[in-house]
Amino acid sequence: MREKHFEKESFGLDEFSLDGSFVGTYEEMIRQVVIPYQEKALRDEIEGAEKSHAIDNFRAAAAMIETGKCDADFYGMVFQDSDVAKWLEAAAYSLLKDPDPELEARCDEVIDLIGRAQHKDGYLNTYFTVKEPEKRWTNLEEAHELYCAGHMIEAAVAYAECTGKEKLLEIMCRMSDHVYQRFVTEKAEGFPGHPEVELALMRLYRYTDNNKYKELAEHFVNCRGVDSDYFVKESEKYPWTVWGNNCEDREYTQCHAPVRKQTKAVGHAVRAVYLYAGMADVAKETQDEELADACRVLWDNITKQRMYVTGAIGSAYEGEAFTADYHLPNDTAYAETCASIGLIFFARRMLDLDKNRKYSDIMERALYNCVLAGMQLDGRRFFYVNPLEVVPGISGEAKTHKHALPQRPKWFACACCPPNVARLLTSIGRYAWSQEEGTVYSHLYVGGTLQINDHAKGKITVVTNYPYDEKVQYHFKPDGQNMDMKLAIRIPGWSQNTQILLNGTRLEVTPVNGYAYISHKFTKDDILELSLDMSVRKIFPSEKLNSDSGKVTYSRGPLVYCAEGIDNKGDVLALTVKREGKVSEFRMDELGGVVGIEVEGYRTLGGDELYSYERPQQDTEVIKMIPYYTWGNRGLNQMRVWIPEK
Amino acid sequence: MREKHFEKESFGLDEFSLDGSFVGTYEEMIRQVVIPYQEKALRDEIEGAEKSHAIDNFRAAAAMIETGKCDADFYGMVFQDSDVAKWLEAAAYSLLKDPDPELEARCDEVIDLIGRAQHKDGYLNTYFTVKEPEKRWTNLEEAHELYCAGHMIEAAVAYAECTGKEKLLEIMCRMSDHVYQRFVTEKAEGFPGHPEVELALMRLYRYTDNNKYKELAEHFVNCRGVDSDYFVKESEKYPWTVWGNNCEDREYTQCHAPVRKQTKAVGHAVRAVYLYAGMADVAKETQDEELADACRVLWDNITKQRMYVTGAIGSAYEGEAFTADYHLPNDTAYAETCASIGLIFFARRMLDLDKNRKYSDIMERALYNCVLAGMQLDGRRFFYVNPLEVVPGISGEAKTHKHALPQRPKWFACACCPPNVARLLTSIGRYAWSQEEGTVYSHLYVGGTLQINDHAKGKITVVTNYPYDEKVQYHFKPDGQNMDMKLAIRIPGWSQNTQILLNGTRLEVTPVNGYAYISHKFTKDDILELSLDMSVRKIFPSEKLNSDSGKVTYSRGPLVYCAEGIDNKGDVLALTVKREGKVSEFRMDELGGVVGIEVEGYRTLGGDELYSYERPQQDTEVIKMIPYYTWGNRGLNQMRVWIPEK
Repeated sequence: MREKHFEKESFGLDEFSLDGSFVGTYEEMIRQVVIPYQEKALRDEIEGAEKSHAIDNFRAAAAMIETGKCDADFYGMVFQDSDVAKWLEAAAYSLLKDPDPELEARCDEVIDLIGRAQHKDGYLNTYFTVKEPEKRWTNLEEAHELYCAGHMIEAAVAYAECTGKEKLLEIMCRMSDHVYQRFVTEKAEGFPGHPEVELALMRLYRYTDNNKYKELAEHFVNCRGVDSDYFVKESEKYPWTVWGNNCEDREYTQCHAPVRKQTKAVGHAVRAVYLYAGMADVAKETQDEELADACRVLWDNITKQRMYVTGAIGSAYEGEAFTADYHLPNDTAYAETCASIGLIFFARRMLDLDKNRKYSDIMERALYNCVLAGMQLDGRRFFYVNPLEVVPGISGEAKTHKHALPQRPKWFACACCPPNVARLLTSIGRYAWSQEEGTVYSHLYVGGTLQINDHAKGKITVVTNYPYDEKVQYHFKPDGQNMDMKLAIRIPGWSQNTQILLNGTRLEVTPVNGYAYISHKFTKDDILELSLDMSVRKIFPSEKLNSDSGKVTYSRGPLVYCAEGIDNKGDVLALTVKREGKVSEFRMDELGGVVGIEVEGYRTLGGDELYSYERPQQDTEVIKMIPYYTWGNRGLNQMRVWIPEK
Repeated sequence: MREKHFEKESFGLDEFSLDGSFVGTYEEMIRQVVIPYQEKALRDEIEGAEKSHAIDNFRAAAAMIETGKCDADFYGMVFQDSDVAKWLEAAAYSLLKDPDPELEARCDEVIDLIGRAQHKDGYLNTYFTVKEPEKRWTNLEEAHELYCAGHMIEAAVAYAECTGKEKLLEIMCRMSDHVYQRFVTEKAEGFPGHPEVELALMRLYRYTDNNKYKELAEHFVNCRGVDSDYFVKESEKYPWTVWGNNCEDREYTQCHAPVRKQTKAVGHAVRAVYLYAGMADVAKETQDEELADACRVLWDNITKQRMYVTGAIGSAYEGEAFTADYHLPNDTAYAETCASIGLIFFARRMLDLDKNRKYSDIMERALYNCVLAGMQLDGRRFFYVNPLEVVPGISGEAKTHKHALPQRPKWFACACCPPNVARLLTSIGRYAWSQEEGTVYSHLYVGGTLQINDHAKGKITVVTNYPYDEKVQYHFKPDGQNMDMKLAIRIPGWSQNTQILLNGTRLEVTPVNGYAYISHKFTKDDILELSLDMSVRKIFPSEKLNSDSGKVTYSRGPLVYCAEGIDNKGDVLALTVKREGKVSEFRMDELGGVVGIEVEGYRTLGGDELYSYERPQQDTEVIKMIPYYTWGNRGLNQMRVWIPEK
């Protein structure tokens, strides 16, 4: 066992610790509630929840490897292995923050089991080992072998980083070597139907310093879509199917064109952003400007034409996919939690390419709105789909709205989103901070302490109750005399009047691409304060958004607001915002203590009549709105983000 | 050959003739353009159109009957026979108005062919005869045998009525006898997956006076849904499928409950309204008040909770179906032309049960808006799907909008809607007029002449340029001294200030259920004038309609209006109606000369930015709107019925 070390990246995971403020509380809940719940789910110990069988699948595969047969069948989705991987990854981050020998022992046990389920040649996948041993690598489009490998690689790197134990890493290096052998050395055709392995291999490369993993990631990025018929040919050669996907739908799997020629974000939204994140990783590490440019174009297409105001992406249930520019329906949105997490992955990697708040602002928007909305405030229920409008009686019920549930269910058979939330929030330091060429970047304002071990050694502690607090303080504690450093702080686009004060004195800083660069020798007890303007702001949609015509919504800081029935006499569809109405804030004790907003408006007193020639009466009304991420925590309820304005 | 006679109903088809005004022009176009085009399509004589093969299927079936084999395969939909039936029905109506020996000879030839395709036992269906001879009656859910029979029965009755020739009638009596034998005499289980035969058998009964056809219709109505598992059991017993329908979806085929217990309009919208029309027919003829009440409840559910302002029904492409109360999305509407035609069938039969304008107002709304919109103004292109909002780039393109085409295509492989429009418009007199117990009812104001042969013999000629003209004149021409009669004229719900004048003198009449009853001895040259108020009216949607929140639309008389890009600088999504703005009418020479309306409003000068904190600038704008039925006649174009109001 080597000494613990971390991926060669800006900061190691152990260099940041959260305090008990907003994000820290979430992280704590993930560790206390979500990760244990998840483990129980994987072990089928939750009564009434759909069976996972994910760990039993590894048992069955191990039996198959060791005895040539097994009693149990494979059960679950073809990518069931990835649930175990995502849990291990989150558990690893958790163990780093809060050592727990019992949890670690159970993880080690699972890792031993995974090792036993690996074939001699390095191949690892329980679906194929147990169920379809003859069909390995014959359905790259649908069978998710490389996707599962990717997640397990991420888990392996995380587990090695956080515990110093490299057994899973060795397992996944063998699997990666196997993949390398097949696709690079032996030049087998093909690329993953569901991208993920690309960014995972880049993590493995950064951790191990082994160039072949970078080379393999590059290979999968570069060959994708060069033969846009690959999946069609594959399905002709091996006519079996997992999902009955239409292999002619090349956009669904982002293989309609070589990645450098792709200009629109299309197809399955999670696949898309995982791919683009991997592309950005490769572009950065290989200094491939053409590839970086492709990433920039795709980023702009998503964020300028295809993204909900909550940072959600994926307009259609059909294919869980992007649809068309400016098509963002509210009540039928797919808006998968995982897709916004993938957007955060993509954003974070774009920040490695370009220091520009256009990436970090969106990272923040996706995190504090769509991603947090994915989880019940108590961490016990999850949304996959995060609609921007919910009408009980229609949402979750009408044929067109079966996917858009009005309340978070407990746990899904396909458990992709909850563990994804868990691994994101338990490694949030990586998104909050980065460093490059001696500059320390503060992207997100997350309460906690950063240990800087290069250049200016010492600690920076962020003190804030963000996202509600307008003030973010950076407290410095040099190891030596001072910390002579350049700190780059994001100035969010939504703040109209931002000040930076050093020990109470305003600094004149002109931000570059939305970052304020402050070079200073920070001494003990220096306090740098970012003072933001969190006035409530009205948001106007593009007139091209036919679903939002004539409507507005509100934000405060990074938070987008919505109106729920429970705060509004049960009926938000009848509400209209007054054009120049007053807006005020109020503190709600409910929902964990949030800042609610009250907006002057009207309530239509219409009856049930479908169409009327008489203008329905209107009363004035004070509309109460809450942060979007807190909706759906108080029972079945109407909800609406965009509200008509008169 | 017997002397021509007509179904025992209020008026015979030959008792009404259209003049050259609005509907008459349409009927003429149907005869000149649509019916011949349709015939060519059925004969596969249209280059570039999808193959129909419908007549060739009868050839193949005849060969099979006569020689035990055939060279050609069956081709097309399982219900391809019904295309021939609907064409024959429309051709029959056309022959009555405008004898055409060549067309009649070709119809006779087709009928001969149909006769040759009939089995000795009376069974008639080319799909089963040619393709699946062993599978007769084993898939009532999907295989449409009774649906096709129903349409051919309707054609048979129409052809007998209009030409006096009863060969097809005899064929279809034999088929009906065969069906009776199977389902009544031999008590075979089952009912049609796609209702239609019920209302057709009632027509056959009324024409032939043969009770067994009424009994058979009653049987199918009464047994429907009593065993709500019938289709599930059927598919277990005979596990073959035409469409891969989910037989567990009992609502799709309206068999989730006995028809008398059904309270919500659910499932496939065309099936639903065909069923309800048949139920109303049976209820009337059997004086079954319980069944009539079920019809009334279903009618109210459709028209008070599930109908578009255009009289369209069916909110979802998925299952071409009703969804939930108050769920009426505009851009993803299914809103099939045939469903609105079926709604007209249903309305007309409800009028036989109850004289109430709530039925005839909707009949008119569906006809002048959704149904006419289904056809290009030149009669050469057709919509199946009639969305209330179209955005090029999304409509017809996004995964969720593939069905909602922004322009009418030429002809579909599934040719259900065009011939349905044809048969409706060529028999419009049946919907315009009825008589009961000596009262003559004027439901629709269609220019033309009605011959009254009972009671008060003579002619009533309606002179009007309705739906644009506010005045509808009834001119009387008694055969004898006078026409001593009671005339009941619908007073439409949309007219706020309606007057009835006899030779210029206002009559004081208090309408009953929306009908003004006028008893008078009309003499030659008497003119009864209905003076309507066609002021443009703003329509307000129920606040429960989340797709229409904050929006309004306009109507003038029975016509609902929409805004098209071509009249509005290419962009209707940027338009907002002024709350108390002026509205004026203007005469458009385009689109066949219609009354357009101009509405004061605003144009948002927003950019492409998805979300903005700055209120976009607005210019005042005069919004031009056109009758909905004329949209899509001038190229690819935005269109919107509901427009935000500020």
